[in-house]
Amino acid sequence: MSLPQSKHKKMDHEVAFLPSGPLDIYRKKASFSWKDMLRFIEGEKVMAFKQHVFKTLENDPLFARQPGEDVPIEKMRALTFLRVKQLFRYDFMTKEESLTHPWKTVAFNDCLGMYDWTVASKFFLHKAMFGGTVANLGSGRHSKYVENTEDMTMFGCFALTELSHGSNTRAIRTTATYDPSTQEFVINSPDFEAAKFWVGNLGKTATHAVVFAQLYTPDQVCHGLHSFVVPMRDPKTLLALPGVLVGDMGKKLGQNGLDNGFAFFDNVRIPRENLLNKTGDVTPDGRYVTPFEDPNKRLGVSLGALSRGRVSITRVALINLKLALTVAIRFSATRRQFGPKDLEEIPVLEYQLQQWRLIPYLAAAYALEHFSKSIFMNFVEFQIEQAVRDKSDRQEEMGREIHAIGCSSKPLGSWTAQRGIQECREACGGHGYLAMNRLGELRDDNDPNCTYEGDNNVLLQQTSNYLLSWLHAKRCDGVRIESPFHTVDFLEDFHKILESKFTATTMDEFMDSAGDYLRGGKPAELVQMAILTLCSQLKDDAVALVDVFAPPDFILNSPIGNADGQLYKNLWSAVMQGSQVLERPSWWKEFCSDKPVVGSLRPKL
Amino acid sequence: MSLPQSKHKKMDHEVAFLPSGPLDIYRKKASFSWKDMLRFIEGEKVMAFKQHVFKTLENDPLFARQPGEDVPIEKMRALTFLRVKQLFRYDFMTKEESLTHPWKTVAFNDCLGMYDWTVASKFFLHKAMFGGTVANLGSGRHSKYVENTEDMTMFGCFALTELSHGSNTRAIRTTATYDPSTQEFVINSPDFEAAKFWVGNLGKTATHAVVFAQLYTPDQVCHGLHSFVVPMRDPKTLLALPGVLVGDMGKKLGQNGLDNGFAFFDNVRIPRENLLNKTGDVTPDGRYVTPFEDPNKRLGVSLGALSRGRVSITRVALINLKLALTVAIRFSATRRQFGPKDLEEIPVLEYQLQQWRLIPYLAAAYALEHFSKSIFMNFVEFQIEQAVRDKSDRQEEMGREIHAIGCSSKPLGSWTAQRGIQECREACGGHGYLAMNRLGELRDDNDPNCTYEGDNNVLLQQTSNYLLSWLHAKRCDGVRIESPFHTVDFLEDFHKILESKFTATTMDEFMDSAGDYLRGGKPAELVQMAILTLCSQLKDDAVALVDVFAPPDFILNSPIGNADGQLYKNLWSAVMQGSQVLERPSWWKEFCSDKPVVGSLRPKL
Repeated sequence: MSLPQSKHKKMDHEVAFLPSGPLDIYRKKASFSWKDMLRFIEGEKVMAFKQHVFKTLENDPLFARQPGEDVPIEKMRALTFLRVKQLFRYDFMTKEESLTHPWKTVAFNDCLGMYDWTVASKFFLHKAMFGGTVANLGSGRHSKYVENTEDMTMFGCFALTELSHGSNTRAIRTTATYDPSTQEFVINSPDFEAAKFWVGNLGKTATHAVVFAQLYTPDQVCHGLHSFVVPMRDPKTLLALPGVLVGDMGKKLGQNGLDNGFAFFDNVRIPRENLLNKTGDVTPDGRYVTPFEDPNKRLGVSLGALSRGRVSITRVALINLKLALTVAIRFSATRRQFGPKDLEEIPVLEYQLQQWRLIPYLAAAYALEHFSKSIFMNFVEFQIEQAVRDKSDRQEEMGREIHAIGCSSKPLGSWTAQRGIQECREACGGHGYLAMNRLGELRDDNDPNCTYEGDNNVLLQQTSNYLLSWLHAKRCDGVRIESPFHTVDFLEDFHKILESKFTATTMDEFMDSAGDYLRGGKPAELVQMAILTLCSQLKDDAVALVDVFAPPDFILNSPIGNADGQLYKNLWSAVMQGSQVLERPSWWKEFCSDKPVVGSLRPKL
Repeated sequence: MSLPQSKHKKMDHEVAFLPSGPLDIYRKKASFSWKDMLRFIEGEKVMAFKQHVFKTLENDPLFARQPGEDVPIEKMRALTFLRVKQLFRYDFMTKEESLTHPWKTVAFNDCLGMYDWTVASKFFLHKAMFGGTVANLGSGRHSKYVENTEDMTMFGCFALTELSHGSNTRAIRTTATYDPSTQEFVINSPDFEAAKFWVGNLGKTATHAVVFAQLYTPDQVCHGLHSFVVPMRDPKTLLALPGVLVGDMGKKLGQNGLDNGFAFFDNVRIPRENLLNKTGDVTPDGRYVTPFEDPNKRLGVSLGALSRGRVSITRVALINLKLALTVAIRFSATRRQFGPKDLEEIPVLEYQLQQWRLIPYLAAAYALEHFSKSIFMNFVEFQIEQAVRDKSDRQEEMGREIHAIGCSSKPLGSWTAQRGIQECREACGGHGYLAMNRLGELRDDNDPNCTYEGDNNVLLQQTSNYLLSWLHAKRCDGVRIESPFHTVDFLEDFHKILESKFTATTMDEFMDSAGDYLRGGKPAELVQMAILTLCSQLKDDAVALVDVFAPPDFILNSPIGNADGQLYKNLWSAVMQGSQVLERPSWWKEFCSDKPVVGSLRPKL
């Protein structure tokens, strides 16, 4: 038994002890050790790595910040850029580590996102959406672009959607027409409705873009959407190149550290070699050649990267939910209101109502923790198979399944987080409405997860299509339903499932039976009772359950959610350290002089 | 027939014609005239008044703004203050008009709120929550305070909640101890947890506050919560008075034009007469006298003003929902995506999914329009009765009922708006996430409606208590259930209602049958089918239905929601007019020089 003990001891040095304070009451009531749970979920190596990243950021003044400060957008964008630049110096994850420890890349993204999603997004858009796409969809002739992303010689972005086209990507209207006389493609936006829009990193910083455009050969034939590397700004001056109208879209609901931009191309010429030619190429004399016969399959490969995006967003949303729950559960365990006597108030977490509001989301966070890891591993398996086997039937089947998973996991994750964070905000009352407590930022930063990489509602129809196609194949061709990742195998038994009925008659039976088809009012009552009972069983573990996934206070950045549970001290202290908090406003004379004459501007009728 | 025609003609001069454009298609399909509907709902006088307010604001450069601009908080607070000051000059509603046309005050608040809630809130907090409370809870000796609010000689606020107490107002800990030697009250905050917190107008501008505190007489007896006028800042300098620590709480999730503040009292002395003495008074020698024997009743009267607040918030939330729906329905009628062919895309409003998302909220907006008006009229009746009859039993019954109505109408309105606005945001896709389209501002400004004047969840329990008390009275005392406003009379038949069963077997029967009790799966299918059918029936009227409640474009302030339906032109134009949109960032050299050496800060292990 000595080995595990020393291991634990080592870990204790790495994971900070939780400070003693008002949360001790609940921590002592917990039925398990939060450190054991953390070790079980993360493993020692990932735990140590995350602590290293967190501490590094906390110790670097460039990452310093104040809860709730009012930062102008220009400055937010500058700070995010500088922080991303600093990440190159820290080089937390080398390319080799990313390949050998894919889960560590997720843990790294978790860390950055817990700090601020715009740092994670800006880094990811440059490295993966630009560099990764060039590597995946290009060939040897594009290696200089990949290399130049690695040391920030250039800065990249991914330009697909246009002002008037988002969901319907096939209707993208930017054109790339090949001119054999100069061996160049001419990139053109037919009108402003076809301007590239919403491109992350393009607003202020990108020097190069992967641009999706309809490829035309000199014979006027359109070969569908292809991707091209297009220089946008001069890396020496950051000034736009001739023919490129590029700018910043302005303020968004959240993620304002990220500069989303637009681009309008006025017959911009790029070398023939800038076509990313994995799915199709044009010969110097202007003939189109492709290894794919079916244009749909070709587009499928080009947009394959979006599955990774959707699987990742599921996790991103979960991280937001975890942060919000940390704040709301710790608040609820320390905020006291009403009680047996006015002077003996009890924590609001003791109220069934507060449990009903928060604990199902806490349970959802743990379920999503397992789910997001499992589908990421499915995606990694898919990617490895693709590198090895590529165009096999099984590989195509895996691609279809991973697409269906991402199209449903992103809506599940992002909507659960959206509603959960809103509930956390409301559950913290007015204090939840104070910017410094971060619930607004979490909600705003999470919100676009419902939209980008495909509108949630539209994506769900993709998954429905996939499921219906299996049913159709079974009915028409007698196919056995068995998918590579086994996520739809249950459909094989759909007749049996539809025939089964809800049989539990007591709440205990209900809680033991697995979630059977039910009818009538009684089961609904049992569900309600069961949830309430489970909530009250979990409430004493709630604080420990968030201790497991809570980052250090510096990263959480929410005075009411600090680990010491000193709710009011921390909140008061943060308020008092606000900018010009006790000063009279600079415009004070506007009150004292120039008093209004009541009705002086009222029309005389 | 000549009279109505000339009337209509007159109105046409006052209500702007809608500009022709892409929305014409739907406007021509509408089954009714939007102007007739507007006339039916508002009436000519209110319509003309609202147009007058809207035009006045649009013509005043002080109210100018740019969609999505990034305004620092200090400037937002200054602008809101200056705009409120200007409202005194316009004097849109005289005191007399407010009394004779109570509904016009609601219409006025609607107008201000459609422009910006913080202007409405700041004005309302000063006029009603300070001035109105002093008038209602004070007596003749306080008339100078009321007069001084009318011309902004002083600026007021309402200070009830504390850092550690919101819902449980009875546990407020600020004390007001009477000192007969100087005939003064000593206002004191025992510790920082009892600092007044969340007080609107107190952050930067209030010179006086209505402060709720526990009243102590010299014999150390506590007489419960009472309200006092406490001078906070010197009106000549806006500097805090001695013993008053007062400041700004900082950034909130929304409504940042309003300066919410905190105050900590260090034995601040105020004259005995500053006690608002309607519910109780202290004689010069220190004896407590009150016309109320029951202290609960006394507090009830003090907090009675909050019913008006809750009834008003129901309407405020509705206005937010109307604005969001205007944006989302007009967007959906002009945004085209997919279609029979790539070049023949159809408006997204034609998709059942988009209808399912938006049209039920459009229906809710019309239902809430009627409901919010009807409960406001109930409140007005209650107020008039109170002025005439005061302490009658019927009056007390009315008070209980209006309290129960406000406690359920505010959750209904604010949550419907919260979810509806979020759906509108998502239904507009990425463009809904752009700040300039205002859906974020609407969501953020609506959000605190779920919290202030009572947390929605806690308030609903108040209404439940009220309903249960009626049932209890019926069971125990055989009382007939009949309330002054008849909102609970249906409970008299509760046995019959519980016995009735759902009998419709077709969708048509279902849509004709009235709000019956149902069991099993079939009714749920019918409900779904019926809603989908009704959605598709309403979709051609949807644009006209929002035209009815849409304010002028200047007020709506959302390029994708403009009345001309030129979605992309307006959006593009607003983006291009953003601040420094095409300029390289001021920090451009940070990209071009000081390039990172990859891994230079990586720990060497």
